[in-house]
Amino acid sequence: MSSKIRVGIAGYGNLGRGVELALAQNQDMELVSVFTRRDPASVTLHNPCVPVYALNAIEQHRDSIDVLILCGGSKNDLPEQGPALARWFNTVDSFDTHARIPQYHAAVDEAAQAGGNTALIAVGWDPGLFSINRLYGECVLPVGETYTFWGKGLSQGHSDAIRRVAGVAGGVQYTLPIEAAVQRVRDGEQPVLSTREKHKRQCFVVLADGADADTVRQSIVTMPDYFADYDTEVHFIDADTLAREHSAMPHGGFVIRSGQSGSGTQQVVEYSLNLGSNPEFTSSVLVAYARAASRLNQQGQIGARTVFDVAPGLLSPKSPAELRKELL
Amino acid sequence: MSSKIRVGIAGYGNLGRGVELALAQNQDMELVSVFTRRDPASVTLHNPCVPVYALNAIEQHRDSIDVLILCGGSKNDLPEQGPALARWFNTVDSFDTHARIPQYHAAVDEAAQAGGNTALIAVGWDPGLFSINRLYGECVLPVGETYTFWGKGLSQGHSDAIRRVAGVAGGVQYTLPIEAAVQRVRDGEQPVLSTREKHKRQCFVVLADGADADTVRQSIVTMPDYFADYDTEVHFIDADTLAREHSAMPHGGFVIRSGQSGSGTQQVVEYSLNLGSNPEFTSSVLVAYARAASRLNQQGQIGARTVFDVAPGLLSPKSPAELRKELL
Repeated sequence: MSSKIRVGIAGYGNLGRGVELALAQNQDMELVSVFTRRDPASVTLHNPCVPVYALNAIEQHRDSIDVLILCGGSKNDLPEQGPALARWFNTVDSFDTHARIPQYHAAVDEAAQAGGNTALIAVGWDPGLFSINRLYGECVLPVGETYTFWGKGLSQGHSDAIRRVAGVAGGVQYTLPIEAAVQRVRDGEQPVLSTREKHKRQCFVVLADGADADTVRQSIVTMPDYFADYDTEVHFIDADTLAREHSAMPHGGFVIRSGQSGSGTQQVVEYSLNLGSNPEFTSSVLVAYARAASRLNQQGQIGARTVFDVAPGLLSPKSPAELRKELL
Repeated sequence: MSSKIRVGIAGYGNLGRGVELALAQNQDMELVSVFTRRDPASVTLHNPCVPVYALNAIEQHRDSIDVLILCGGSKNDLPEQGPALARWFNTVDSFDTHARIPQYHAAVDEAAQAGGNTALIAVGWDPGLFSINRLYGECVLPVGETYTFWGKGLSQGHSDAIRRVAGVAGGVQYTLPIEAAVQRVRDGEQPVLSTREKHKRQCFVVLADGADADTVRQSIVTMPDYFADYDTEVHFIDADTLAREHSAMPHGGFVIRSGQSGSGTQQVVEYSLNLGSNPEFTSSVLVAYARAASRLNQQGQIGARTVFDVAPGLLSPKSPAELRKELL
């Protein structure tokens, strides 16, 4: 019998691969199995000794897994998988459709309660670590404003939108915070900022054969919801450059709380991430919270929880006494 | 009967004044009394309606206070007051002698357990919010290095040290992070940095009548523990300039975790504070944690706890459902 926390992965895309790698950095956890909707024989893990199983028979593995990390997408996978799997397992997921969190929480909570499990939802960096910093900021400085800026980062949704434009053979989109706006916030000015003043969008596009650059540019920059409200740059590049220079998935951003303490004194708190790989970092956060999910379940905390419900110490393999001595 | 959290303050110096002001920013809490070792009649609060009592009869007020915020100093007051008061009250304190936290925790824990109280120790920004960020950083990126830089900030201990030098009539000392070192860390370099490479010290000194500037400068820059290991600037100013330009108590700093996620990708997390008033910000943190102390006690969490044991959501006046909807 192993004393390590036994972890399963449901879904083996970018996030699942990142979770496998992150688990290898945590000696108190071990990956015991991966579940996929694809043919298990077609899935190759970094560690070939870990078995891959079909997702549709996952309940059979209930007794061999302490925490299941859900690595599906928020749009199509998690709304169904989250509640279904929280019935059988302690789970951690990165559900990130902010507007639907209340209903997702309710569905997962019901399933987790029924199964006697603990389900940590919306774990990652936004929602996740950014949310925690928004919360700490407004609790410590109740008089003030909170600002969230994203980037420089590759946006999957906006990249997909570009690729659906007629005449586009390939492309990526980066979201960039506007430095002047960030600086005004850092300086304690508490400005009111429009969408256009906070972020700009930068597109790198490969044209399809015979496509007209100006027409494509116009289609992109005027696209409602995605680009029309922003200053958008469109750069045309060739397919080789796209593959060579734009295949990484960097991201990051800032949460800034600018407030006044009691006598009107200006106080500014800033949290920032500069991520070489967005999915790998999200995976690393999921793994730390898998440790917490296992402990919360042992404490009898049954149902759906978020990062707001997890005391920081539960994320660490160190004992409370070690944490007080080494990190406080 | 009030539904607000009833808070008392023990000790009315800079920190106690800050707590009074911070409480006024939090509508779910109210200041019910202040306790002092001085003659209570000599203490003037911002709000003259709040009664001031002698600290030595504080047990009599046990039933009227939900949480007592201890605003004494770590060196002389808290080692005695922390355990003594945790016997009678739920407490929050800003004990900040890092090396003595384990023994202080043990003493307060014993008293709080005996009294059935909850005592949050070492609350503030370092220890406190910085500690939380050191913890999150190493849990999320277990492979990496954590760096803490302080400043620009007024250091009370070093200012006191200057003022004890023969020939010094007055003075203040600022600790400054060395920008080049911060930048190397932000860039993901993970440098090994000596004490001298991380911070420098800047002194503004008023000479006593007839004192020799060079002698004073030498005494300061060679002082062991305080200045000898740093590059120290000494600027001589007059008493008016000292009073006019150096009476604020700014501080701040950075906690940076630079690490590699699973495939070796560089990831950098940074938390920074830019504080117009160090004691007022510490007070604001204490007040947010007073709310948590009250809730932890209601949950039956008896004994000494630290910021590592407090789930972020416990700091907020908002309900878990509101937090999920608005901040996640």
